[in-house]
Formats: sequence, C-alpha cells, structure tokens
Amino acid sequence: MAFAAGAAGAPEGRDPGAWVELAVPGAGAELRARLIWLAGQARADIAAALALAPAPAERLEALRGELAARGLDGFVVPLADEHQGEFIAPRAQRLAWLTGFAGSAGLAVVLADKAAIFVDGRYTLQVRDQVNVDIFEPLHVTENPPQEWIAANLPDGARLGYDSWLHTREAVERLRGACEKADAKFTPVDGNPIDAVWADQPPPPLGPAAPHEIGHAGVAAAAKRQSIAGALAKAGAEAAVFSAPDSIAWLLNLRGGDVPNTPIALAYGIIDRDGDVELFMDPRKLTPALRRAFGNDGVRVAPPDEFGPALDALGRKQKRVLADRRSAPAWILDRLEESGATLVAGNDPCTLPKACKNAVELAGARAAHVRDGAALCRFLAWLAVTAPGGGVDEMSAAARLFEFRVGGEHFRGVSFETISGAGPNGAIVHYRVDAASNRKLTPGDVYLVDSGAQYLDGTTDVTRTVLIDGAAPPDGARENFTRVLKGHIALAAARFPIGTSGGQLDTLARAALWDAGLDFDHGTGHGVGSYLGVHEGPARIAKRGADVPLKPGMILSDEPGYYKTGAYGIRIENLVVVREAATREPKAERDLYEFETLTLAPIDRALIEPELMTAEEIAWLDAYHARVRETLTPLVDETTAKWLAEATAALD
Amino acid sequence: MAFAAGAAGAPEGRDPGAWVELAVPGAGAELRARLIWLAGQARADIAAALALAPAPAERLEALRGELAARGLDGFVVPLADEHQGEFIAPRAQRLAWLTGFAGSAGLAVVLADKAAIFVDGRYTLQVRDQVNVDIFEPLHVTENPPQEWIAANLPDGARLGYDSWLHTREAVERLRGACEKADAKFTPVDGNPIDAVWADQPPPPLGPAAPHEIGHAGVAAAAKRQSIAGALAKAGAEAAVFSAPDSIAWLLNLRGGDVPNTPIALAYGIIDRDGDVELFMDPRKLTPALRRAFGNDGVRVAPPDEFGPALDALGRKQKRVLADRRSAPAWILDRLEESGATLVAGNDPCTLPKACKNAVELAGARAAHVRDGAALCRFLAWLAVTAPGGGVDEMSAAARLFEFRVGGEHFRGVSFETISGAGPNGAIVHYRVDAASNRKLTPGDVYLVDSGAQYLDGTTDVTRTVLIDGAAPPDGARENFTRVLKGHIALAAARFPIGTSGGQLDTLARAALWDAGLDFDHGTGHGVGSYLGVHEGPARIAKRGADVPLKPGMILSDEPGYYKTGAYGIRIENLVVVREAATREPKAERDLYEFETLTLAPIDRALIEPELMTAEEIAWLDAYHARVRETLTPLVDETTAKWLAEATAALD
Repeated sequence: MAFAAGAAGAPEGRDPGAWVELAVPGAGAELRARLIWLAGQARADIAAALALAPAPAERLEALRGELAARGLDGFVVPLADEHQGEFIAPRAQRLAWLTGFAGSAGLAVVLADKAAIFVDGRYTLQVRDQVNVDIFEPLHVTENPPQEWIAANLPDGARLGYDSWLHTREAVERLRGACEKADAKFTPVDGNPIDAVWADQPPPPLGPAAPHEIGHAGVAAAAKRQSIAGALAKAGAEAAVFSAPDSIAWLLNLRGGDVPNTPIALAYGIIDRDGDVELFMDPRKLTPALRRAFGNDGVRVAPPDEFGPALDALGRKQKRVLADRRSAPAWILDRLEESGATLVAGNDPCTLPKACKNAVELAGARAAHVRDGAALCRFLAWLAVTAPGGGVDEMSAAARLFEFRVGGEHFRGVSFETISGAGPNGAIVHYRVDAASNRKLTPGDVYLVDSGAQYLDGTTDVTRTVLIDGAAPPDGARENFTRVLKGHIALAAARFPIGTSGGQLDTLARAALWDAGLDFDHGTGHGVGSYLGVHEGPARIAKRGADVPLKPGMILSDEPGYYKTGAYGIRIENLVVVREAATREPKAERDLYEFETLTLAPIDRALIEPELMTAEEIAWLDAYHARVRETLTPLVDETTAKWLAEATAALD
Repeated sequence: MAFAAGAAGAPEGRDPGAWVELAVPGAGAELRARLIWLAGQARADIAAALALAPAPAERLEALRGELAARGLDGFVVPLADEHQGEFIAPRAQRLAWLTGFAGSAGLAVVLADKAAIFVDGRYTLQVRDQVNVDIFEPLHVTENPPQEWIAANLPDGARLGYDSWLHTREAVERLRGACEKADAKFTPVDGNPIDAVWADQPPPPLGPAAPHEIGHAGVAAAAKRQSIAGALAKAGAEAAVFSAPDSIAWLLNLRGGDVPNTPIALAYGIIDRDGDVELFMDPRKLTPALRRAFGNDGVRVAPPDEFGPALDALGRKQKRVLADRRSAPAWILDRLEESGATLVAGNDPCTLPKACKNAVELAGARAAHVRDGAALCRFLAWLAVTAPGGGVDEMSAAARLFEFRVGGEHFRGVSFETISGAGPNGAIVHYRVDAASNRKLTPGDVYLVDSGAQYLDGTTDVTRTVLIDGAAPPDGARENFTRVLKGHIALAAARFPIGTSGGQLDTLARAALWDAGLDFDHGTGHGVGSYLGVHEGPARIAKRGADVPLKPGMILSDEPGYYKTGAYGIRIENLVVVREAATREPKAERDLYEFETLTLAPIDRALIEPELMTAEEIAWLDAYHARVRETLTPLVDETTAKWLAEATAALD
C-alpha cells in the first residue's frame, strides 16, 4: 500500500504496473492487478493527501503575509492549472492546499480580513467537511457568485491579485468588472503567491512523453501540421499558439504522463504558416523515440522558459496570431498583445480535426471497446454471482472491475475515477466512494458503475446500472430504468441531417422521462478522445451550449440517467460514433448521419419493463444484445459466456 | 376595383369595409366581402404599384445626382422602415421605388458607376423579372454578401452613405467593417436622399390610433407601465426607449392602422422610472377615445419631431437608458450616446410580457380561433364540393376564404397575405399568387392554404393542406403528409420541464421526416401576438437561435412542412399556447409545461396513411377532430356540419 502510494507520487509512465515488479518480484496476475489498482486509487487521493482537510490556518496566514508584502489586498485562487485542464497535476492543486477542498471545481477569494470559497451544488456538503468554514465562508457559486461577493466585500481602491496563467480572459473580464464596481483594481501578479509560501509544493510533473505510433494515430504528425497550417492561412493568421496539451498531443502524435487519467504532456506550442512547430516542454520528458520522431520533422523542442520570449518575438514581427480565447490562459493573450502581435479570434484549430477520428482511430476504438466490453462482462458476470451473497462492497467492486481490465492488451490505466454507487450512493451523480461512504451491495440494490479505461488504441467510458439479485428493486426503479433506456435508444437510433448539433438531439434522450415529470440534471453526452481525454470538445449533447454540428468520426457518450435522492441512481451510457447513415431510403433527399454504438455490454434486463417499450425499441435492444453476445462470447471464459447468453437473450 | 384600390391607398381604419357603403350603397353581404377582399389585395399590391417594375432608370440617376450633390460616393438602400418592422408603409418602400423589386427582403447598394441588389434564395428568379438587371446587378445575399461586394467595389477613400434610421447598429457595424476594408468611410446621412428625389413619395401613414379596450387587453396600461418601470430599475436603467410599434401598442393598450396586416401605430416612446411615457406620434392619429384614455394617465403625446430633442434631454441629464440594440434604429443609439446618455444593454422590456398572454387575452384567442375555425371549415366544405368540378383557382379560393372570414365578429382584416398554392405552387414556401401564376385546382392536386386574420380579440394563422378529390395524389404525397402530421403531433403533444426552449423541441417536429431522409427549410414555429403581429418574439421553435425558454401564455405556431419542388407542398399549422401541464403523474418531480392547441379545423384524412401512425398519434388526431367537430358544428350551416362530421370521423 505504501509502495503503491509512492509510485503514485511519481509520473505513471507508459506501463502502469512497471513498479510492481520492483515491489513484489514474481507477483501473480491477480496481486499485480490489485497493487496497480491501489496505486491508481492512491494517485487519485494525492491531492487530498497534500491538502490536509481542513487545511491548517497557517497556510492562509502565510498567503496573506505574502500578499501584504506585495502590496495586494486580496487574491483569487481558482481550481485550475496553467492549461485549463480537466485533470491537474499535484503542483497545481493550490486550492486544495490552501483550503483542504478536494472537489473537482471551486474557487476561493482571499481578502485581508475575510475569505470565501465558492462551490457548485455537488459540493455544498463536502466543502463543509473539508474546509475550515471559520476562515473560509462556503458559498454556492450560482446563488452567491464570486463577482458579487467581490463587488460587495472588496474595499474601495483595493488591489485584488490574480495569476493570469490560471484564468481565461473571459474569466478575467468578469472578475475585473466586479472589481470596478467596488472601485478596486484587478491586477495580475508576477509569480503565484501561493507558490511562494507552499514550502513542499511538488515540482512540475516529468511524465515521459513518447510517440503515439502511426498504427494508432492513423495520420502522420507532419500531415496534421500541414493541414493546421492551411487552416491558419484560411483564418488570416500567421501563427497559432496552443495551450491545450491534448491539442498538442494530437497534433504531434505524442502521449505523455503528466496528469492523472489523460495521457498528455504539459506543454505549449507555436505553429507557423509552414507547419513548423516550436514545442515548449521540459526536454527531460522526451523519450529517445519521440526525440527521434521530432528529429528532422519540423518540430523544435525548447525549454518552457523560452515560451514567453517566443511570444515576444511574434509580437516584434507584428504577426497575426490565433489563440483560443475560451481555453488559453489570459497570460498568453496579454503577452502577445503587449509585445505587438495582433490577436486573431478563433477556436483552437486542432479541436475539430481531433474530434473527427480517422479510420485507423475508429478501428482502434472498436477494438478497444471489444476488449473493454469483455472485461466489463467478466466483471458483471462475477458481480451477478457474488454480490447477492453479500461479499461485495462499492470499493471492492471497483477494484475487481479494474482487475478485469488491467490485463487487457494496450491497457494504460483508467480514463477517470470509477463511480461505484449502490442504492442511495448511486443517486449522487459525481459520487466517489471512500472508506467512510463505502456501502455493501445487497439484494434489491440498484447498483451504478461508471468507469472507463485508456488503451493505446482508444478511450472508453461506460455506465451500467444493475439490480443485485435476490430481492425486488425499489418501487418505481424498473419503470424509471425503462424510461432512461427509451431515451438512450431514441438517441442511439436517431438519424439526422448534416449540420444537426447535439443540442438538437438532446431532447430525444429526455422525452420519455419528461412524460413522467422526470429529468436529469447533467448533459446527455460529451466528446471522447482517441487515447486522450475522456471529455473533449467541441461537440456535446446537452440542453444548452451544444450547437456544434456533429460530424462523422466524432465519438460521444449517450448517457441519460435518473436519480432518486436517497434511494438509487440510474444511468445507461454507451459511447457512439457519428457516421454517414448506413442505409438510404429510396426517396431520401438529404444525406443523413447516424450513430454507431461502440460500447459492448448487456443492459440489465431485470430492470426493464417490456410493456413500456415500443416494438422498435425492443428490436433495437435485442439486436444490440445479439451483437454484444456474438462479439464477446469468443473472448470470455465459459462461466461468463453462460451468463452473457442469458443477459443478452431477447426480451419476451 | 378602382375604388377598392383607392381605399387601399388610405389607412385601413378600424372597419375594413366602411368604404364599401360609400362605393356601393346597399351592397349585399357577398358583394361587400368580395369588394373588401379586392381592397385587401390592392393594398398588398400597393408597393408594387408605386414601384413600376422594373423601375425607370431615371430614379437611379436622380439618386446619383443627389448623392453627388451631397458629396457621397454611394448609398445603401435596405428594405426596412424606421421601426425595423415586418410590414412597412408605402412611404418606406424605398427599395421598391428605386428598383421595382417587390419581395419581402432585400438590399441595394448604389455607387457612382454601378449598383447591385441582394436578395435571398426565394427571390433570385423574381428579382430578374422585376428589376432592370442592366443597372442593378442581382446577387444572392449569402453567396455574394453586400459587405464583400462593398469591400471589392467601393473606391479607396470613398464615402458610402446610409440612413441610420433604417439599420440596426449591428448592421451598421457589419457594413462599416466592409468600408474599412476598402479604406472607405461609412457615413450616416442627414435625411434620406431617396426621399429628396422621390417626388410623389406617399406621406407618413395616418391610420387612426384607438384604445385596445380592457375587455380585450386584460391588463390596464397603467399597470403595464408600472411593471415595465420596475423592470427598468432591475436593469439599472433610468429610462427606456421604444422603437417597436407593437411594444408601444401592447404597453399603452392602443391599436393603429399604419401598416398592412398588423394593427400598429408607427410611433416612438420613452418611459421613465415612474412609468410615465412620452409618446412621439402624429397627434392627428389619436382618436378622441385614445386621447381620453391617455388624458390623466401618465402618457404625454408629442409630435415626432420632438423625439430627437427628448433623447438629447436624456443625454444632458446623463441618464442610463435602455434601448434594444437588436431592434432599435442605429439613429436612436447614436443620438443618445452623442448627447451624453449611457446605454444600458438589454432586450426591449415589453417583448417578454407581451408574449405571455394574460387570461383575458387567452380567452380572446380561444374565442377568435373558434370563429376563425368556423369560417375555415365553411371554406373547406365549400372547396371539397366545388373544386373537383374545376371551377376554383388559387385566387378565387383565397378570395372565397376571405369572404367566409369577413363577416365574423371582431374581424379586422387578414394577418398576412394568404398563401394559396396548388400542386407545384404549393412547394414555393413564400408563394403569393398573382394573375400570371394563378393555377386552377384539379382533382388529385395537393392544395396548400396558409392564412390568418386579425380579430379584436386575437390573431390567427393556420395552414391546411388538402387533396382535391377525384384523382389520386402524386406518388409519395400521402406518406409525406403523414410524416409531417407525425411531426406536428409530436410537438403538439410534447410535455417538457420549465426552462425548455423552442430550440429543444424543434427536432420533435422533424424526426419523422429525417427518418425518411427528408426535412423542411424553415422554422417550425413563431410567436403570435394578441391582435398584434402574426410574427412576434422573443420565443420561437427552430433549429438554431431559439433558446428563449417557453413560458405559459406564449402563443406559437406548430407548422412542420414538406415541399416537393415542381410537384406539391405540405404544411400543417396550428397555433398552440404554452400552459402548465393539465395532468401530473403521481410520481412526477418536475413541473411540466405543455401546449394547448388553439386552431380548430380538420386535418385532411384523405392524405393520411394510418398504418404509418402509432396508436398514440391516432388517438391524438381522433381526439382533436372530435373537439373540432363538437366545437364548430353548432356554428356552421347544415351542409358544412355534414362535411365536418365526415372530415372529423375517427381514423379506422
């Protein structure tokens, strides 16, 4: 356990179990898997471990001392890294260090005599457990937005500091407006004051950055660079600056190990109109293979401290530079403008081509989903036999699922922390089990497990909700499961014209719930990368803000749900890929797109009320189950195969 | 006919047939109706009549002379009035006068040596018929946008003039950008140069402005003014400027007669934080009753030429003034800023409360739809008997429909020009029949008629598509009609949570068409006023730009369609009103909204393929038809009642 935690402190590397051989020479497969799982858990815990919860009050005092020394009256502490990433390295866990808060979204504002922490509805209880509310007032981010609190509490003429590496310009403008209302000044700092007082702050991560081979990437980096250079010309820009590590990973066919769950290398990049790239990254991270791949290939690696001067050089040459205002740190835009560059508005030009997977990536995704489906089926079969006996809890279930995955070809770790929730815990949408919350699975429980993996050839994300056999589920659970399933199928089976966005399809996944006066308070689908982020843009399926047209090759989740607070949660999630419709009606006038379902695992028939389903819905489910059975049976053991045959039988 | 045209030149007044008694004393009901219809047609033709088509080249020459005299190198001529209205008075038909173009949307740019007219896809053929293309190059507005043409054709250093009364600021900014690309200047004129050379330009209209009585309006103007004053305070504004006549009509409970189809009085208004209103309108338009209503009631009427000085006064007092940037003429915003006022961004505060009809308005809408439905049924019954014999054409059908409506209680004219299209003409979405295009209805024709009326108690808009009996419809027409109907029903029957927008529901109306590779290229639904505009904001139902949440009392159309070019058009349109769901599931957790259908008229069973419909869809249609029959039978003659009984029989 201690060794596992130590391994978790270091970068994960390409083989998530390399350290096991050092720790327990000759460990068998099962022990090996269990140790890797523990390491993964420990890695996920690392931020919380760094952050004593609640954090000692001296940290806040030290920060205030530093602010006073700099002539600042306050400071804003977002939960963000220098790349606006979803998963961030321990070094960037400044909010957790300062407050103890270990949630996935939040922001603190520290003034000389008061401080507040703003969290969303998911975390209003957790923040009180983890944060010393005597020194940080906990506030709901939409009911009491930070900008209002700032406007009300910042003294006249005060100077509120911020680290422009950690905010987009939009966020800066919003907070600047709040300061102006208070006749105060919102002022960027030179060096984060938390870093100045955080004695044992971890160093920047040094995960190895290695090539993502053409056999998985499908298109050579040189070709991608040329095509992005073409996009620059079209946008009227002479260069583009990249701050999103997954854009850089896609563009240069590299994968790294700097943050949990997503195989990225933290770096910045500049591309010019010839397609040449300067990559600003600690050169110690480069594997020899990646160095070779870059060698004669238009990619120059420079240390991170040359990034600023390189932006200045663009400015001196009065270049027109594209930088994505919605994702780039304000620091980059400020530096470019101050040095004389002209900013060209536009999206990160890698985002869209990265989202539209090529044929090789799609073949990889299909293969990864077959392996992942086999592992999930072995888990579900095991669960069906074991859980009714009372020997399984949420943590051991998640660990066991990991074990089934870890031996798979190309496996490189989980793509996010597994959500394993039984009964009422399943109703907490972003539930993460820990020792205190851990529940035993008992007959009649509705158990929700949302998990995913990174494979060299693809990223997975799947949710299944199953009934633990031996007792009836809670009243209404079967009807509601069926309504969620109807929504899942309506979206999965949709056919839609070119140009349709996820926002236009979202309602299909909700209408069956709406009919009963029910709904779910999360998006219906998010983009998924190719051995990259499990959440990626630009397309999504949601009620609002989902107006990017869907294009062939985009991988998205289809995950409607229903959550009965205090009772159970239901979510049915498959990944799907947008493709041209396989069939065309003889009198069709428009070209249509449709979804191909990638995920392969049975949907629990024990929770379905067939009489609520239409004949078309039943036909869809039976065909899906037949495909699951035929594809996975050859890959699983006999016991699992037997279970699979029953689990995928046609509905009667 | 001549008398009718003369009457059409004058304002319509409150009784659309008052002039008939002068022209043909003692005319019978049918003659009277026919004369009123002819006047309506003539009124609609008036712009085209003013505008010789193509317009004489001397008009363009005169304009160029005027521009030269003013030191301008060009001028932009939009199809717009000084209120950004949908229906505009003859005086504002400057584009038609200059070019001959009589479509509903377009823009010309006149330079010293060349000129172009930009129209959308609906008008690419018509523009060549109506405009002298030797002097105006006809261009497609999205393929060759005016800003690109300006950037390419405007000489360096030139001055392109525009009338800031006729453009929103957004339009000005777009065109100014084009001028800057050409190193030219986009410059507002003082007085429209067309008005200077248009010798017989009609004067501003002088339709009588009368009270909209509380029995129809439901809420007193004083109460509305107080509530808008409250909205101002919330928006941080000290005053608001209104330029939309329908906002003013709603706010002050007045109705006018200045433009076709919509009972508005052209005027501007300023409201302050006390709810006091200054109304800038030719005082000759005020009926004594309206003058009395305003008398002691916080509304001061001033002549239009005091509007500018009133804006200056706001500026001198450095007021914070709300003006809707998307609808206000740039002139107003410019004048406010120049005089020292601070502009507060925000929507016209009348738009949302106007859209949410109160209980009295809804009762009026229901009553108006019953009368309108009875008239439409009498027409459809007449058509079913008469058309198969070959004695009906598109024009006579439209005239006859008008006759059935004109006698109805509270009738005040049509709400838009009737679309009456048989066979291939029905496939032209914005078809307007004229003598040249007029088609006889023949057996087997699919005939589409989209019409509506203004009643004192409500505005209607309904489309029915019927088969002319005696021969089979074109191949596929029944299947496609059924798919349109499925979409209509899916939307009409939707139940959805509070906060849902029309954009989220749009797909429901299209999915059955998408399944067959079909779609329609117009929105699914628009807002409808209460004895006001047949098209009003802010909510709509469409693929894009429809993110305003639906609220109880909003009246919208539900009008999916399908158009087979060269063959036939299908559209099924009812008006619906948003309401709280009438029933609540026992386990419902969310409050739901749903639609109540207002429009009452049979949907042609002869065009339905029942085997394509689900049991639920058939149940919806049968219940709707039963309601139509039960409501309308007492109001129609025996022959119509008999037809109605058959037309509304349950599907077998």
